[in-house]
Amino acid sequence: MVPPHGRIRPLGLGEVDLGPGFWAALQDTNAAATLDHCEYWMERAGWLANFDRVAGGTTGRDRPGWCFSDSEVYKLLEALAWEYGRTGRGEVDDAVRRLTARVGRAQDADGYLNTCYGHAGQEPRYSDLETGHELYCTGHLLQAAVARLRTTGPDALVDIARRAADHVCATFGADGTGLCGHPEIEVGLVELGRALGEERYVEQARIFLDRRGHGTLRQDRVPLGSAYFQDDVPIRRAHAWRGHAVRALYLSAAAVDVAVELGDRELLAAVEGQWEHTVARRTHITGGMGSRHQDEGFGEDWELPADRAYCESCAGIASVMVSWRLYLATGDMRYVDLVERTFFNVVAASPSADGRAFFYANPLHQRVAGEEPEADALSPRAESGVRAPWFDVSCCPTNLARTLATWHTHAAVAEEHGLAVLQYASAHVRAELGDGRVMGVAVETDYPRGGTVAVRVTEAPAGMAALRLRVPAWAAGAELEEGGRRRPVPPGAAVVERVFAAGEEVRLHLPMGPRLIWPDPRIDAVRGCVAVERGPLVYCAEEVGQPSVRDLDEVRVDPSVPPEEREGGVVVVRALTGAAPAPEGAWPYGARTEVGGGSAVELVLTPYHQWAERGPTAMRVWLPTAPPGR
Amino acid sequence: MVPPHGRIRPLGLGEVDLGPGFWAALQDTNAAATLDHCEYWMERAGWLANFDRVAGGTTGRDRPGWCFSDSEVYKLLEALAWEYGRTGRGEVDDAVRRLTARVGRAQDADGYLNTCYGHAGQEPRYSDLETGHELYCTGHLLQAAVARLRTTGPDALVDIARRAADHVCATFGADGTGLCGHPEIEVGLVELGRALGEERYVEQARIFLDRRGHGTLRQDRVPLGSAYFQDDVPIRRAHAWRGHAVRALYLSAAAVDVAVELGDRELLAAVEGQWEHTVARRTHITGGMGSRHQDEGFGEDWELPADRAYCESCAGIASVMVSWRLYLATGDMRYVDLVERTFFNVVAASPSADGRAFFYANPLHQRVAGEEPEADALSPRAESGVRAPWFDVSCCPTNLARTLATWHTHAAVAEEHGLAVLQYASAHVRAELGDGRVMGVAVETDYPRGGTVAVRVTEAPAGMAALRLRVPAWAAGAELEEGGRRRPVPPGAAVVERVFAAGEEVRLHLPMGPRLIWPDPRIDAVRGCVAVERGPLVYCAEEVGQPSVRDLDEVRVDPSVPPEEREGGVVVVRALTGAAPAPEGAWPYGARTEVGGGSAVELVLTPYHQWAERGPTAMRVWLPTAPPGR
Repeated sequence: MVPPHGRIRPLGLGEVDLGPGFWAALQDTNAAATLDHCEYWMERAGWLANFDRVAGGTTGRDRPGWCFSDSEVYKLLEALAWEYGRTGRGEVDDAVRRLTARVGRAQDADGYLNTCYGHAGQEPRYSDLETGHELYCTGHLLQAAVARLRTTGPDALVDIARRAADHVCATFGADGTGLCGHPEIEVGLVELGRALGEERYVEQARIFLDRRGHGTLRQDRVPLGSAYFQDDVPIRRAHAWRGHAVRALYLSAAAVDVAVELGDRELLAAVEGQWEHTVARRTHITGGMGSRHQDEGFGEDWELPADRAYCESCAGIASVMVSWRLYLATGDMRYVDLVERTFFNVVAASPSADGRAFFYANPLHQRVAGEEPEADALSPRAESGVRAPWFDVSCCPTNLARTLATWHTHAAVAEEHGLAVLQYASAHVRAELGDGRVMGVAVETDYPRGGTVAVRVTEAPAGMAALRLRVPAWAAGAELEEGGRRRPVPPGAAVVERVFAAGEEVRLHLPMGPRLIWPDPRIDAVRGCVAVERGPLVYCAEEVGQPSVRDLDEVRVDPSVPPEEREGGVVVVRALTGAAPAPEGAWPYGARTEVGGGSAVELVLTPYHQWAERGPTAMRVWLPTAPPGR
Repeated sequence: MVPPHGRIRPLGLGEVDLGPGFWAALQDTNAAATLDHCEYWMERAGWLANFDRVAGGTTGRDRPGWCFSDSEVYKLLEALAWEYGRTGRGEVDDAVRRLTARVGRAQDADGYLNTCYGHAGQEPRYSDLETGHELYCTGHLLQAAVARLRTTGPDALVDIARRAADHVCATFGADGTGLCGHPEIEVGLVELGRALGEERYVEQARIFLDRRGHGTLRQDRVPLGSAYFQDDVPIRRAHAWRGHAVRALYLSAAAVDVAVELGDRELLAAVEGQWEHTVARRTHITGGMGSRHQDEGFGEDWELPADRAYCESCAGIASVMVSWRLYLATGDMRYVDLVERTFFNVVAASPSADGRAFFYANPLHQRVAGEEPEADALSPRAESGVRAPWFDVSCCPTNLARTLATWHTHAAVAEEHGLAVLQYASAHVRAELGDGRVMGVAVETDYPRGGTVAVRVTEAPAGMAALRLRVPAWAAGAELEEGGRRRPVPPGAAVVERVFAAGEEVRLHLPMGPRLIWPDPRIDAVRGCVAVERGPLVYCAEEVGQPSVRDLDEVRVDPSVPPEEREGGVVVVRALTGAAPAPEGAWPYGARTEVGGGSAVELVLTPYHQWAERGPTAMRVWLPTAPPGR
């Protein structure tokens, strides 16, 4: 369970100081807009007042919100707790205390805490484990408490969480039965158990994990089959992620934590195998996971439609949670590569530039421009092609808030005898190594605009130490510059291992030219297409603002001409347009017709994470190649 | 509203006598197995007893079945009525009377008839027009009565339907409001109105049609948008079918009937335009309609995934209903072409060979072999890849039963001065023409095995008459043989117009060699693929029983070699196998890799309508073409 370079320790908020750049801008927007936005909508929707009504004994059948709305409050609490840890702004701490007080008053004497079940006029506690989401909500409460513990130490929120966790252990312990239709309690329990040193909580998470996969959840309540909630096969025996994507990924995140805590190599290997199979055959080019709208789920192998790609923002976050844990457990940079891809092309794609609207689904092809949602309505539309301020099921905004607030903790880790820099952004990192020494580095870069990353040692440990810089899998041709000399470094990690002195600098040069990407020929949905990437960014063609193309359906890219970079992060590819469409009204299947002609045009591509920022538009990530015709 | 060759009159059951062949076999199985099978399952599920319980005053909250289960009883009644008309078998008439009696006893004094609403312990009548399906059920009751009227004349079932229709008119008339979330009452009303000469019913159908499309149905009850139930745009203004496919098609079938009854050219033109747009851009090669599982609905233009093609059996039936009516109204053979395609590749695909199991969805690509459903359970799985005996929502089996019982009435029509033969099967047709003369023909063919259709005049009208034989759009190179001479006839219709004598024969020769079919280049999902057709049949590759291919995902077809027909209706194409797969565990997107090699094999194709008859299997209609690699 110990990676080859020694145990890897993730850094706390105080150990990484993020400088200006791509991610700092997202964090600032999150702090300045999204956190308030979430509280505003939850107040407005009555999801916060649900706690007051339980406390006041006035809740009932008219309780607003889905049964899982408590979890949004907890995810906001978690985001606020991390945000206070990041900046120390007093009003953020005030918000944590204010929300904590309202939540705490709704907790029953025995530790049970849920505003949807168990009170007058409501269904009894745990009467619908399949869809009731009670333990799911509790899991998010526990994660919020972990954020508080990791930033300010024990407080009222931690006490609430401890009582809730004790109640769960008492109700669902080794002699009990039952599990939640939506995994999350598992990761909450193991995280809180680790943070508090409470082995009981870790063990309860393990119990839930191993209790799952035996078909005990009632399928008549969710007619999508037991795979929907991963109750079809025990996690130790499954070969791939399947069913509802967020459920599958939260479950696996918990499994890695439990495996590490209990030294359970079998469990870790099982999740590694599922990651490998799923990433190779069930993952979209953006890192997005989930191919089906019907069950928000994974499809079969190679079922990766661009137009109906679901790629829920929450599934992207959950995928980062799993890959990050697998990296910490194994030191394998493949996991960090997927984290980067998912950060830039799923997580960063969801929020609008102003932090007050969000994508729920992140498709790779929008056939028809979306319609702006009604400004004041909870959007039922997870698939509108337009970011919406809030949703009827609004899991993504708060999930983004908690993730963005902690983005910089994924930038680097402490190893036994050195530091590893994993995500490139200007930052100062100062951390205690596994061997007790301290090492500091300052990273300077305008990545992903440019590909040069300068890492200057600001504090050198005495004696030999290692500086490890991730070389992304896409970065063939990368070079490491040290003392004026450059040497090629293959994907994986560039390692400098020697005695360092403060002020010394190494530079990583990543090749940032745009490149054409071909899909595996077994991915039916995008056969005959190419995509374009530049650095870690996937690009797309929008119909809006496209100078020489009116209809994206008519464009064919010429893959023999390399894509060109232009000013402003724009990439241009050569294409034919106006060729090929069959006569209107015809049956669209028939004999082969070679269609020539068409005009050569330039197709302008923009980073996928920015799509629909200039207004509703059709959009394609995968571009059909010439020749056109059938 | 009168087609160029004079008004077209559909034939009654007594005017077409079907001989042995493809469709007679399906009709026989329907008669011998499916009708009893449907009654057995509805008795077993309590859907029939629901009527007894209403009559006995014992129904309540524990009523089994979905709110629309009454409609299955009515569709079975309709099937039985047609079947009695077809064969005159006394036990079938007994079944009609037996079921009619049980239904009738549940009717309220004011004509209201529904087992799910309006009685003690139930929600009030019409309290949920969006999803309650009360008027939908009534529509099917009316269609059952029409079948009885058209075969035996007025009886108890017709009286029940008349009272129900009067109740609907009184409740939802011109001064009223409200419409049903699932269209069907419209087609029931117009059909019954026409059969009884009751203009009020036709007018009520028109009222419902024009009341729709103004967003009056509550979307909070069905969060799929108002297009789901075609309440987004009035039918006269819509440009394409959209939303739930069966809903859209039942509505359009009613619209054509209303347009014809009222001489409403605007309404007819609107449906013609919707047909044209939808067939060109939203229809699968099988004729199947519906691309999305989530809402059983049409997707956007060009959204035609093979693997997630929904192509509900009921949507195929509903499509036949619309196209048939459009042909009768216009005489345009394009509509009959689609009827044929849909009959052979959707309707015939659904039932198993024994008539006791059914496909609900009819995808064009099954990635993983399905699992046999539990023998005794209502299958929740509309997408299992295996035919199931009955479904939780079991609309398709009874819909197939009523359709198959009347298949032969689609074989020919009477024109003003002649007969048109539209679907090829051995049959004897004798009908009164529009001008009052009588004409008879005997058709002999083993179509779709062979492509020769012999039409012998058995009864010649005095003077000039026309014999019109449809030449399918796929049949380029067809020839008409008359008096020993053959002449080419283009797609559309081959017409012989002269004075006929009994005993004279003409022969249509349709080219039945297998042919490769390319999709329109704008259909993203099947880019780089071909399909194979032979005559009216779409073919597919099954993994089961495939002599030289193990994994369908690895096959690439060589389109430069024409497909070859072999014994037993089998077609063989040349393919490469074993080439191209990327290394296991790799990220599936990257630089172009030309992959050579692979073994040349023969890929065996079978008619799509037979797929999964040899057991659960992976299957593809669309076959990727060589070269492999990315």
